[in-house]
Amino acid sequence: MSDQSNMIKVIEEFPAQCQTGLELTQGLTVTSKISSIVVAGMGGSGVAGDVLKAYMENQKSSILVHVSKDYTLPESVNSETLVFINSYSGNTEETLSSYNEAVKKNAQIIGITSGGELAEKCNRVIKLPPNFQPRAALGFLFFPILGVLNNTGIINVSTDEIKETLKLLEDTEEFRSEGRDIAKQIAERTPLIYATNKFAVAAYRWKCQLNENGKIHAFSNVFSELNHNEIVGYTTSKKEKFVTILLRDALDHPRNIKRMDITKNIISQKADVIEINSKGQSFLARLFSFIYLADYASYFIAMNQRIDPTPVAVIENLKKELRD
Amino acid sequence: MSDQSNMIKVIEEFPAQCQTGLELTQGLTVTSKISSIVVAGMGGSGVAGDVLKAYMENQKSSILVHVSKDYTLPESVNSETLVFINSYSGNTEETLSSYNEAVKKNAQIIGITSGGELAEKCNRVIKLPPNFQPRAALGFLFFPILGVLNNTGIINVSTDEIKETLKLLEDTEEFRSEGRDIAKQIAERTPLIYATNKFAVAAYRWKCQLNENGKIHAFSNVFSELNHNEIVGYTTSKKEKFVTILLRDALDHPRNIKRMDITKNIISQKADVIEINSKGQSFLARLFSFIYLADYASYFIAMNQRIDPTPVAVIENLKKELRD
Repeated sequence: MSDQSNMIKVIEEFPAQCQTGLELTQGLTVTSKISSIVVAGMGGSGVAGDVLKAYMENQKSSILVHVSKDYTLPESVNSETLVFINSYSGNTEETLSSYNEAVKKNAQIIGITSGGELAEKCNRVIKLPPNFQPRAALGFLFFPILGVLNNTGIINVSTDEIKETLKLLEDTEEFRSEGRDIAKQIAERTPLIYATNKFAVAAYRWKCQLNENGKIHAFSNVFSELNHNEIVGYTTSKKEKFVTILLRDALDHPRNIKRMDITKNIISQKADVIEINSKGQSFLARLFSFIYLADYASYFIAMNQRIDPTPVAVIENLKKELRD
Repeated sequence: MSDQSNMIKVIEEFPAQCQTGLELTQGLTVTSKISSIVVAGMGGSGVAGDVLKAYMENQKSSILVHVSKDYTLPESVNSETLVFINSYSGNTEETLSSYNEAVKKNAQIIGITSGGELAEKCNRVIKLPPNFQPRAALGFLFFPILGVLNNTGIINVSTDEIKETLKLLEDTEEFRSEGRDIAKQIAERTPLIYATNKFAVAAYRWKCQLNENGKIHAFSNVFSELNHNEIVGYTTSKKEKFVTILLRDALDHPRNIKRMDITKNIISQKADVIEINSKGQSFLARLFSFIYLADYASYFIAMNQRIDPTPVAVIENLKKELRD
């Protein structure tokens, strides 16, 4: 088995996809009063919401963002809530159920989808190009949200940070080579990926890409919470079973930087530690430098096992049985 | 090695601890206007906040609860935010840092602690009995919050649900025997514990207790999100490495009940699945039936490895190095 549906090509074109994602929002804005934001979405579509939440918290926005990964929406959703309904396929049952709730609650709704039932039902839709795996469409799923919120004045996205982020990602050769190295270091072990709360979405994205592209177990957690429980699990851990990946950022809280150093020392007898430093200046660039690397690392994890990264037979079987 | 500090006794006395926790709040109420609630706490102290969030969401409360596990508080905290500062020791550095932020933001503050710096600094403190491991003090850390919010009229706690919960937990022999069986089934494998979002805190509590008491790796996740990524990890999984624990509740969303059935079938070739059904009628009782079982299961995981469940040397070493 190999990369039969050419996943590597989709990964290489990710920087261009982000650019296209931004262009899809040209002019779209929200005129009514917005007090809070909800992004409803599962899996790869939901991660776009997690990225938005991280971005807005880093901007110290006072508008709360809730990412809803369920059949229902939070009780607090009302006519002043802007709800992004994110479903790449447009047929995700949890997200369609959330859409129905958002309608009942008179929320402001924007659908982001390539088609399906969502495209038919929803009045205001950002239509995405078809034929992508949802997890390989994060540029399409996230950047339109950023664009709409910037147009609306809810957040302030600078041209510089966009330019820097896209330019950084365009160095695909470097990401590819680093991703290949990391996959080799992970080998046949279960990766545990850690970041601070600020970059929790990056650690979670790594986990999900390793699951879906690499077809292996992987788990993520955050500093400093993991210092209060997960770290004790290393007491009986073995080097051949688990490998720890630290996503590090020079602007992390100084105590968390120290925590990462100490944690690395403490667990080094029980697990090899791979350290990955963020690249770039702006928060957006640093965040996406982590996220993009996960695409390559997970791709090479599949390749090293001679598995085609694209099909997710388990999910397809599950969906089929859910329909029956 | 054995249970040198008599953890089993503390576990057996948990129902009485919950009762004492409730009594600690006699009369304490908040008179100013409250628009949102934050619980700041790490590890076992933070789990009390997760339990509150689950409880209030189940009551469809329109008041948002945020559980803050970090050095900082959310941007939205203001004078109408009721902030519980939860630190069993009173010396948790992240929580003390959150306390300082809460003071600066003029929030309404209640400290819950057995002593330390927090007891000295904070004007309004619920003082807990000393000499417990924080993870073994969840009854002390959670029930006072429930009591204060009930006194204040923010939530409605019925005498019946309290009575039912305490009565259910008092059947310690049944929990003990079931916990022993589950520990035996887990054997030397890494447990993956799954629940629906409603019971996410129970799955997380299982993970943390298995980490801290059992000294083993363990990871939790939620339905239906895990159907979109983690489930693919089973593609290459082996029965001798991982074991899956499903926390099931008869009132889970019908589609999630179906998802659990299908997931069990799909992964059964790759991992043994242990199913645990909630006990009781009220949400509080059902939730605590999951939580209490984790105490026994994690205790017996330690016993089966001939490890003393109480000391968490890794955390103590880390704290020492953080002070240096």
